[in-house]
Amino acid sequence: MIDTLIEKIKKTQAPIVVGLDPTMKLLPPQLLEAAYRENGENVEAVSQAILAYNKELVDAIADLVPAVKPQIAMYEAFGIPGLIAFEKTVKYCKEKGLVVIGDVKRGDIGSTSEAYAQAHLGHVTIGESEYRGFDEDFATVNPYLGTDGVKPFVKVCAEEKKGIFVLVKTSNPSSGEFQDRLIDGRALYEHVAEKVVEWGAETVGENGYSAVGAVVGATYPEQGKLLRKLMPKSYILVPGYGAQGGKGADLVHFFNGDGLGAIINSSRGIIGAYQQEKYAKYGAENFADAARAAVLDMKADIASALG
Amino acid sequence: MIDTLIEKIKKTQAPIVVGLDPTMKLLPPQLLEAAYRENGENVEAVSQAILAYNKELVDAIADLVPAVKPQIAMYEAFGIPGLIAFEKTVKYCKEKGLVVIGDVKRGDIGSTSEAYAQAHLGHVTIGESEYRGFDEDFATVNPYLGTDGVKPFVKVCAEEKKGIFVLVKTSNPSSGEFQDRLIDGRALYEHVAEKVVEWGAETVGENGYSAVGAVVGATYPEQGKLLRKLMPKSYILVPGYGAQGGKGADLVHFFNGDGLGAIINSSRGIIGAYQQEKYAKYGAENFADAARAAVLDMKADIASALG
Repeated sequence: MIDTLIEKIKKTQAPIVVGLDPTMKLLPPQLLEAAYRENGENVEAVSQAILAYNKELVDAIADLVPAVKPQIAMYEAFGIPGLIAFEKTVKYCKEKGLVVIGDVKRGDIGSTSEAYAQAHLGHVTIGESEYRGFDEDFATVNPYLGTDGVKPFVKVCAEEKKGIFVLVKTSNPSSGEFQDRLIDGRALYEHVAEKVVEWGAETVGENGYSAVGAVVGATYPEQGKLLRKLMPKSYILVPGYGAQGGKGADLVHFFNGDGLGAIINSSRGIIGAYQQEKYAKYGAENFADAARAAVLDMKADIASALG
Repeated sequence: MIDTLIEKIKKTQAPIVVGLDPTMKLLPPQLLEAAYRENGENVEAVSQAILAYNKELVDAIADLVPAVKPQIAMYEAFGIPGLIAFEKTVKYCKEKGLVVIGDVKRGDIGSTSEAYAQAHLGHVTIGESEYRGFDEDFATVNPYLGTDGVKPFVKVCAEEKKGIFVLVKTSNPSSGEFQDRLIDGRALYEHVAEKVVEWGAETVGENGYSAVGAVVGATYPEQGKLLRKLMPKSYILVPGYGAQGGKGADLVHFFNGDGLGAIINSSRGIIGAYQQEKYAKYGAENFADAARAAVLDMKADIASALG
């Protein structure tokens, strides 16, 4: 799957992943109102509006980007109906040829991580048949429990030709609280990065990258520079561009000399573009066109930064 | 909710939580076969069998223990139908008067953790009404992202009178890989413990314990002893007893002098008791009686260890 992602990045010339992270505040009013009229003001209506929102967004950007990253928490907040919208979003995006990174940040003891890996990347066996739960192409994984919490994901990646991104240095303001602390003279995130290399060693694909990538926030460009070098064969998923404050110029060092090695996420900056002054002319009715314009601007910003 | 949990522990005289972690291997064959006959060999049948299994287990043990801990991964592996079984399990356990600890190990950047907190402990507002997703009483939380990944959970705990258990020192073999590493002469788990105290400081209830507890594995009794002292007002959720190798005698130091402060989890050891030689006489048909016997034995083991 890492090779598929790389091929799509090359084809679109866009190392960009769009975060499909719907919230009540981002949902265009006309979609919510239509769903309320049909279902009443309830969670089923909201979930229907979320799916309609995602589908219009995907239709507008599918030719521009290689991948999307739905953040499952935003769907989980709406319980079972929300998770049904997540499941249908994943399926729709895959039908449209997009690589789907499930931003699930799971991680547990071995037997439990195995169940999460089955849920998001693999399958369970029922009688004679295989059942696939959410079936994303990639998932994000939390490393706090160490190797035996991550290995079950790597095993499923190898079996199913899928991939993971392990949290190394996250984009949030307090990420340094534990991740930056020095252990034998090096930050915790460096130690995690070392393990990312180890965990992915057996899964390097034809483009020279492993199925085990890393998450490193755009908001920490200096750390990104160091981590790029520490994990030469790991793709870096870079959140924090746009709404969280990261800029195009900060991104250069997340890439390798081959122009590959990083994929930059923007969520609110794209899907909520219609609410920004810059794209206000589109109006809520044309939120998907605003998203497309924001993707094109982001693409230009990154291309210009990469020179 | 921490006060409710403590009252129930006192009433049952059992600092025990039963892990409801169903797997294909643990499901009693008669439940699976009945569900297959009704639905065919599919995921809906398995989810129906899981719910039936949990209900019989809960009916057999609800008078003996204060709490249950369903591990969401085991349900998530069966996709939406599995998560419906999780939702119904939570509801059923609460109806039976049990405190429900959702073992979800969520944790993300602030806005995303807020969505997870809404999903598992709080609610979202839709029009004029509140919608509660999974509505557990407690949730487990991963601390890797630091304060701003945990605070949204604490806020919801305060608003909804609920609680969390933060992963401090997990029970798995590789937990030391990062958690034991020394930072300024003290293990990472000690630094996390210090933050657990800080995060919970404003939420101490009438029994002297805060809404922010900690997870510390039974498999690490020495660390448990130290962590007990570092977090005097935090309840410790202790997994790893039984199937993972922890013994009653290892547990003493997880408790405070008041006899409170810890709640010990057993999952497979209880719900899969019928598959163990010791309880084989019950047979698969009477799996719930086997579970009851195993709870009584665990209760005696812990009581004897606590002397």
